[in-house]
Amino acid sequence: MAFDCIGVLEKKRDGHPLSEGEIRDFVLGYSRDEIPDYQMSAMLMAIFLQGMNPEETAFLTEAMLESGERVRFEGLPARPVDKHSTGGVGDKITLPLVPLVMAYGVPVPMLSGRGLGHSGGTLDKLESIPGFRVDLSLEQYRERVQGVGAVIMGQTRELAPADKKIYALRDVTATVPSIPLITASILSKKAAGGAQALVLDVKTGAGAFMTTREKARQLAHSLCEVGARLGLEVSGFLTSMNAPLGRFVGNALEVRESLDILKGEGPEDTTELTVALGGEMLRLAGVARDEQSGREKMKEAISNGRGLENLKKLIISQEGNPAVVDDPSLLPQAADKVEVASEKEGFISGIDSRKIGLAAIRLGAGRRKVEDPVDPSVGVEMLVRPGEKVEIGQPVVCLYTGIDSNIEGARMLVRQAFQTAEKPPEVEPLILEKI
Amino acid sequence: MAFDCIGVLEKKRDGHPLSEGEIRDFVLGYSRDEIPDYQMSAMLMAIFLQGMNPEETAFLTEAMLESGERVRFEGLPARPVDKHSTGGVGDKITLPLVPLVMAYGVPVPMLSGRGLGHSGGTLDKLESIPGFRVDLSLEQYRERVQGVGAVIMGQTRELAPADKKIYALRDVTATVPSIPLITASILSKKAAGGAQALVLDVKTGAGAFMTTREKARQLAHSLCEVGARLGLEVSGFLTSMNAPLGRFVGNALEVRESLDILKGEGPEDTTELTVALGGEMLRLAGVARDEQSGREKMKEAISNGRGLENLKKLIISQEGNPAVVDDPSLLPQAADKVEVASEKEGFISGIDSRKIGLAAIRLGAGRRKVEDPVDPSVGVEMLVRPGEKVEIGQPVVCLYTGIDSNIEGARMLVRQAFQTAEKPPEVEPLILEKI
Repeated sequence: MAFDCIGVLEKKRDGHPLSEGEIRDFVLGYSRDEIPDYQMSAMLMAIFLQGMNPEETAFLTEAMLESGERVRFEGLPARPVDKHSTGGVGDKITLPLVPLVMAYGVPVPMLSGRGLGHSGGTLDKLESIPGFRVDLSLEQYRERVQGVGAVIMGQTRELAPADKKIYALRDVTATVPSIPLITASILSKKAAGGAQALVLDVKTGAGAFMTTREKARQLAHSLCEVGARLGLEVSGFLTSMNAPLGRFVGNALEVRESLDILKGEGPEDTTELTVALGGEMLRLAGVARDEQSGREKMKEAISNGRGLENLKKLIISQEGNPAVVDDPSLLPQAADKVEVASEKEGFISGIDSRKIGLAAIRLGAGRRKVEDPVDPSVGVEMLVRPGEKVEIGQPVVCLYTGIDSNIEGARMLVRQAFQTAEKPPEVEPLILEKI
Repeated sequence: MAFDCIGVLEKKRDGHPLSEGEIRDFVLGYSRDEIPDYQMSAMLMAIFLQGMNPEETAFLTEAMLESGERVRFEGLPARPVDKHSTGGVGDKITLPLVPLVMAYGVPVPMLSGRGLGHSGGTLDKLESIPGFRVDLSLEQYRERVQGVGAVIMGQTRELAPADKKIYALRDVTATVPSIPLITASILSKKAAGGAQALVLDVKTGAGAFMTTREKARQLAHSLCEVGARLGLEVSGFLTSMNAPLGRFVGNALEVRESLDILKGEGPEDTTELTVALGGEMLRLAGVARDEQSGREKMKEAISNGRGLENLKKLIISQEGNPAVVDDPSLLPQAADKVEVASEKEGFISGIDSRKIGLAAIRLGAGRRKVEDPVDPSVGVEMLVRPGEKVEIGQPVVCLYTGIDSNIEGARMLVRQAFQTAEKPPEVEPLILEKI
């Protein structure tokens, strides 16, 4: 085994495409602990630097899928559709999105992740709802989708275990932002979880993994092409991460903002993106004839309160306290609030969402290491948006702080995050392109 | 530590030069088991694919050197000079070279390696001399150089331990043939061992690690430039590995050929290379005014028998039986001999030394895995040289076989190794260029 392994490593190192069998043996060998971490990490770096063509990426995805079980739903009212965001700051869209889509009987089997690095994770946000469980079994996962119509939980060990093991290794070997590796990781998990279509929110800009528009586009194309090879219909949007999404960054704070969206009182940008992604999901599921009518349906589910109702159902089915929906004060509340004033005057030309994300981590909202605890109550509230005019001394941000918050560190990052210009800047739209 | 480590990995991954501190922390951290194998292997692959400039390579060499002790000889009669060959098939030059150079009082502190892959190792060859020990302590190493004037032994754990650990990892992660990694590995070991000058034999061709002349030249330049930064004067030759060196491939067989060289009865090519490398060593040590007079001195030490005498001294000082010098039948003798006949007629245009090396391994002369035993008696004798004419059925090779030899496997490889042409080919000289 070891001998072959080096031959395959040499092949990728020298830029040659690998065969289906070579990729399969490498991935399944690693998944079964027959290939050591150090050979896989050399392979990951070789893939990072030499790339993989769409065919190889599909083989990689299939091998990861084959490392575990694949859920196949039967007798569902519509095609099960999932949504995937490549990760950003303040991205709470999943929370209002799923209950709105549920209103039209679209099954949503969603496997989400935790926050790591500067970006947050849906599971951490949901866990700020008292009692909410994201660690259900695979059997419970199936039951929820078939019964309630949706579930949002963590990847179980039965689903694409090779992806889980490889992801942990990528995280410590500087091999995360690789298009074939990202593609295989996302699609193997989604396909294993039983989704048949997938709506993408591929972020680009300072706070995103893909910092340039070109890279984000390449990732989107890779996901569509490889998805098609796996029988997964993939579409979606390229969106801007040149400012955090919405008003709040931080777990319970983002749940609050999600409730606002479902009540029709959310910030414009988060509402717009929720409606767009949901509209596309309805179209892919076959319950809306086109994107536009999908969007109308989403807006309707906001105004008639069905989304809010479904969120309660979802919370109940995952053992959380549904009373938070009507009374957000039941969510964890921060110990204190501190405003940060602008040191400059002018028009806000951009808010570095990476820095805002890191500021939230300084306050305790996210992890520096996997084992770090998270304070659900803390976070950052943006008091101004790009394009607005600010004066010196005007509060631009409100920090929600806890006992272990590094307030000075957060304040410094926030101040660095705000860029001003003398003239009103041209503000980039949130949704940049259709994929 | 882990956090920094990823930052440094990202930097090299993205093709940026690393600082002295970054390289030092990475190497020493790995040497102290603070950085795990999987992060080092990702770094090795990144270095393989992104390269390192001479300054970085010098920092890498210094860090490896710093991971252990550095021998500093005092009161020696001349500058201690070492020789390094990048590894080939039938390369027994060290054995006649060291005793000839000793004749002029040039101290030779030599750290050699074992065979792995298709190429042989000096330590395995020496161990075919009954009793010969290559596992002396560092203290014994110093004593031998100061007393006898030379020593040929394995790297001790005190000398460049980071190199030893990194080399083992490169071997299983397809990161061996990288110019900065080879440079740092060679020079850190040589500098740690106390050499102040180094003569290189950089091989190129089918049996060498650097298959193209251009790559071999790059490696040679890298060794010279980085050597200079470390205060090590480096020179030497680019030589052809388009045929095995000399008549014999195999451990005891190569010792026999070495005795022939010292008796003035060796094959032309091995004698020529021994004289050339030795002449250069004498020049670098300051005991010959130029290369030419160095060569004359080498020839003299052959004809007056001083080389043969010094070999006896060297064998005695490393606990071997010096009687083998006068009676080579005391060396391990192969159980049987089998001739392989030519299947073609024509002029020998080339002998693939890689295949001959692999054939010797099939017979038991080398290892497939580090822990494999070696049969010192077996090997391959070349009965014809490039340029000679052969008939169908004429023996071209004699296999020296043992109980565990895979004779059929060796025969097949040998047959593949011989290339013939209709017309007398132009035979490439052995010494291609001065470095």
